Amino acid sequence: MSIESGKGLLLRADPIATAFRDEVKQSLTQAARRPRLVGILATSSAPSKFYAEFTKKQCEDLGVEFILKKTGAADTGDLGEGEGVEEAIIEANEDENVDGIMVYYPIFGPQQDHYLQQVVSPYKDVEGLHFKFHYNLYHNIRFIQPQSLLSSGVPAAALGAIEGEEPPSGTVKSIIPCTPLAIVKCLEHVGVYNKILPYGDRAYGRTITVINRSEVVGRPLAALLANDGARVFSVDIDSVQEYTKRPRTSQSEPARRYHPRHVVHPSNATLQECLALSDVVVSAVPTASYKVKTEWLKDGCVCLNVAANKNFEKDVRDKASLYIPAVGKVTILMLLRNLLRLQQYRIR
Amino acid sequence: MSIESGKGLLLRADPIATAFRDEVKQSLTQAARRPRLVGILATSSAPSKFYAEFTKKQCEDLGVEFILKKTGAADTGDLGEGEGVEEAIIEANEDENVDGIMVYYPIFGPQQDHYLQQVVSPYKDVEGLHFKFHYNLYHNIRFIQPQSLLSSGVPAAALGAIEGEEPPSGTVKSIIPCTPLAIVKCLEHVGVYNKILPYGDRAYGRTITVINRSEVVGRPLAALLANDGARVFSVDIDSVQEYTKRPRTSQSEPARRYHPRHVVHPSNATLQECLALSDVVVSAVPTASYKVKTEWLKDGCVCLNVAANKNFEKDVRDKASLYIPAVGKVTILMLLRNLLRLQQYRIR
Repeated sequence: MSIESGKGLLLRADPIATAFRDEVKQSLTQAARRPRLVGILATSSAPSKFYAEFTKKQCEDLGVEFILKKTGAADTGDLGEGEGVEEAIIEANEDENVDGIMVYYPIFGPQQDHYLQQVVSPYKDVEGLHFKFHYNLYHNIRFIQPQSLLSSGVPAAALGAIEGEEPPSGTVKSIIPCTPLAIVKCLEHVGVYNKILPYGDRAYGRTITVINRSEVVGRPLAALLANDGARVFSVDIDSVQEYTKRPRTSQSEPARRYHPRHVVHPSNATLQECLALSDVVVSAVPTASYKVKTEWLKDGCVCLNVAANKNFEKDVRDKASLYIPAVGKVTILMLLRNLLRLQQYRIR
Repeated sequence: MSIESGKGLLLRADPIATAFRDEVKQSLTQAARRPRLVGILATSSAPSKFYAEFTKKQCEDLGVEFILKKTGAADTGDLGEGEGVEEAIIEANEDENVDGIMVYYPIFGPQQDHYLQQVVSPYKDVEGLHFKFHYNLYHNIRFIQPQSLLSSGVPAAALGAIEGEEPPSGTVKSIIPCTPLAIVKCLEHVGVYNKILPYGDRAYGRTITVINRSEVVGRPLAALLANDGARVFSVDIDSVQEYTKRPRTSQSEPARRYHPRHVVHPSNATLQECLALSDVVVSAVPTASYKVKTEWLKDGCVCLNVAANKNFEKDVRDKASLYIPAVGKVTILMLLRNLLRLQQYRIR
């Protein structure tokens, strides 16, 4: 079909989600008990309410217990936006029967929301938004001692050595933020990750542009991809950065050694120049009017939209070989996978 | 003078700083060793460079060792803004001889800077920007077990009980972010805090407007003042909130109990209405053009500017009984006080 029409393939997230749904179902049969996820809805935001309903339905379909806790403007009382949300998190942290906590952001804005993300116990942080998990991600620390979730400070780098996909004895996998992880899984599914290459370097050879550098999506995604070997252009409203773990040979100073994790360099490239080089373009700009120009795309590239309002033009498949318009259905499964892992780390 | 001219008093921070300078000098004579503060400058920003010079001079005057570590665009190499800053923090964290770490923000913007603030070990966080200290502040937890700085998760609320100004046995004072603390100290100095009232409630009876609700200045300041008994209007660009630990009697529901810490309610008041009620106005809006209208001020109020570009009009003292144009000289002493405390918590 795609060849006949001359257009790239439109790929929905459903078939990608299916494999993970089966994995989650399988893990559920082995769980210590039926996991309980608490969703905290603290605003009157329609998308948050919609997402809460979506979480509930997904959980019920799979046999995960979902309890929606409404507070603030989501509650029936006369509370303001976000009122009571911190107390609701603390209560769920302290409740032994709660295995995971999901908070429907945005609530107060990036700064105060970031504070709330630290209030959630790392043991119940199914979204993977706690500083500890971000630190591990940025430092390419893939395996952790579960008890390290109880200590402050940064983990020993030695645990970060990648020797294979499975955690060395006494360690478990760190938790990766849901949305960036879902994107990586989609890119794996469509062959951007090359399974012939060794684990931890399977995106080697790919050039990827990530548009948006928030701490929730863009920066962790750029880091994950670069840690996996890709050359990543991280494009934000006011700068372009290059994330790579390989030495830059074009530099005047002697070639740097191969890095065990990505390093970040400033770049003078424009978005247009980045796109001309990019095999993959991921866009996550939360602005309805923002669109990536189709004419700037490299012919045959893979495009993936993460924004609620589509960041690609209608004719994106005139250039893209593959276009994935949304990843939400994979994201929720990553969240449930995190839930099952965290339950295991905490209860075992 | 102020009565003759009909104008309010202009009060520089110098006399307020003097008392704390003496306290820091005194503490230095009792320190285990000469404390070492590492300043990390990672950008080419002129104000950051200026502030680094200022820190250096203040440290040298007092006999604190100050080491300026330049990285990123502050360094001589061809590095970009902020490059290497995380590595510099980790190195200082791990260096036993370093007692405190100060990072010159802004570097990447609020979100990524917030990430960096969590990388600094709480044991060396002289600025008090780590989540742990913010959590304690928001929850009015004034005393902590020093070893709790090593554990993740949130501290036991029981330690938060206020029974006096001095920490109960086995506990030490939590660290309070420098800038909000400096503002509180200025307000204590000018009599906004009433020493006849019991410790922990000395701002009772005062109505205070805080303009700005960032996680670095406005929100912690509003929380500190409300925890100390004040009624605080927290004004941000898109909303007004009321911070108070006292029940709201105007509410239709039965009067709520007195809270051990502040609670936050949404407010329909406008800035003009808040100012008309306010005994104290603190403004910290980082926009050169932003000015608080003098005509809106309550006659005889106390005004305090925290912004680099003054947020009050030139005629502010036509209405204000007292105007403090800057607090930087007090802030640096709060930072050094935190340095001495943290050295003691870590080494003892």
